[in-house]
Amino acid sequence: MPRTITAYSNPLVKRVQALRDKRHRREEGLFLAEGLRILTEARETGRIPRFLFFAAASAAHPLVRALVTAVEDHGGEAIETTPDILSKLSGKDNSQAVVGVFATFEAQLADLDRRRASLWLVAERLRDPGNLGTILRTGDAVGAGALILVDECVDPFSTEAVRASMGALFTVPIVRTPWDPFITWLRSGPGQLVGLSLQTEEGYRDAPYTAPTFLLTGNEAQGLPEHYEAACDLLVKLPMRGKADSLNAAVATAVMAYEVLARHKG
Amino acid sequence: MPRTITAYSNPLVKRVQALRDKRHRREEGLFLAEGLRILTEARETGRIPRFLFFAAASAAHPLVRALVTAVEDHGGEAIETTPDILSKLSGKDNSQAVVGVFATFEAQLADLDRRRASLWLVAERLRDPGNLGTILRTGDAVGAGALILVDECVDPFSTEAVRASMGALFTVPIVRTPWDPFITWLRSGPGQLVGLSLQTEEGYRDAPYTAPTFLLTGNEAQGLPEHYEAACDLLVKLPMRGKADSLNAAVATAVMAYEVLARHKG
Repeated sequence: MPRTITAYSNPLVKRVQALRDKRHRREEGLFLAEGLRILTEARETGRIPRFLFFAAASAAHPLVRALVTAVEDHGGEAIETTPDILSKLSGKDNSQAVVGVFATFEAQLADLDRRRASLWLVAERLRDPGNLGTILRTGDAVGAGALILVDECVDPFSTEAVRASMGALFTVPIVRTPWDPFITWLRSGPGQLVGLSLQTEEGYRDAPYTAPTFLLTGNEAQGLPEHYEAACDLLVKLPMRGKADSLNAAVATAVMAYEVLARHKG
Repeated sequence: MPRTITAYSNPLVKRVQALRDKRHRREEGLFLAEGLRILTEARETGRIPRFLFFAAASAAHPLVRALVTAVEDHGGEAIETTPDILSKLSGKDNSQAVVGVFATFEAQLADLDRRRASLWLVAERLRDPGNLGTILRTGDAVGAGALILVDECVDPFSTEAVRASMGALFTVPIVRTPWDPFITWLRSGPGQLVGLSLQTEEGYRDAPYTAPTFLLTGNEAQGLPEHYEAACDLLVKLPMRGKADSLNAAVATAVMAYEVLARHKG
């Protein structure tokens, strides 16, 4: 049976709120996700919250009931609470019907089966959580095998990244790795490493893509380091007709991902 | 000669800070932009701040000096201040070297010359300032004729939108209009209205685009209203291979914009 919490001062409320902070996420190995659609998607992929907070008003909703059952079956705790506390937990004015606290998870390079997908996304020193979440969401849409985060990237379990991913955090495997183990793993099997660059004349629209393609996106401000570009099998550029010689990193990744997807198909 | 402000309590500091609020922007007809690169880009397009705040430490920088001269030549005011006050003005921890206060501006449908560009972006009830700024940035990259904001969209002069646009706010004309005047204007001359939709079997990759193409993006959560879809000359869909049937609105706009750009070229 769900217990009820109505006091802000409740220690669990404070503990969950603290998960908006990176240090607490790391120490606890837990993170926050919110919204009925996203938590239901998580459930369907087998990710069940340790703690589930829901508003009394939505307790009868069939999807909320399904979540409560799943949480209790898996030894977690379902907690009925107030809209105010839900808002406090998620840090948003319009509270969602549910907030879940999940164990963080991570795939390893060795877990990835490169025959499973023809397109893989790789991002290097990504700094913006919104970009990371948006790239995950694009990864879901194009059926990417994984998102491989190279070197020090922003935390994929930050509330903003989880939110921007719109549930794709649960459907697209995430690997975090330094560059050297990544490139060693990549070269141990088939795989074309394609980097987006301004230092090439090769247009992205005519370039020869061969599956499995690993699409490498660089840091938002600095792009790819030179020796990472040198390690690519192919560098391509997007046309830039404007004043600024740049695109948002998540946008550039998506334009490239859809190009590669279409070209693989034929 | 620039004057110096070092007190948080200075009325101008308070007035400028208040511009992070939409109501104040509307009342004053002013907005904030920050960063040397963006303000320099603005200057090159003829947009000169009414007020320019710069840190004493960057006063000798040639681009800062050029901005100060431009501001004073145009009857504005240049103000030397502290890094703390710059941070306070921009609302960011890492203060930029310069913060500018500009008059808001807006183009009218009647001002747009549709022979000037083969691609135009149209967004409907866009809600997220980051998406709006990112779409402007993409608009700059693809050489879009303008961004036409239909019905109630988020304010393009919000600090977050300006920031995400990375200066494209100054290079891509913006029009705000209700739907009816937009469609009347559109139909008064050549123009193909293309909507992104889930209610069609027409793949975006094979669809017939004819310049000038007006690319219509719907609200982040709801997509396009039915009768807006019905008014389109062409509805296309992007492949969705994942669990979620959706892409970020700025991402979808960019994938479509690059497709249309490539197909117009041949």
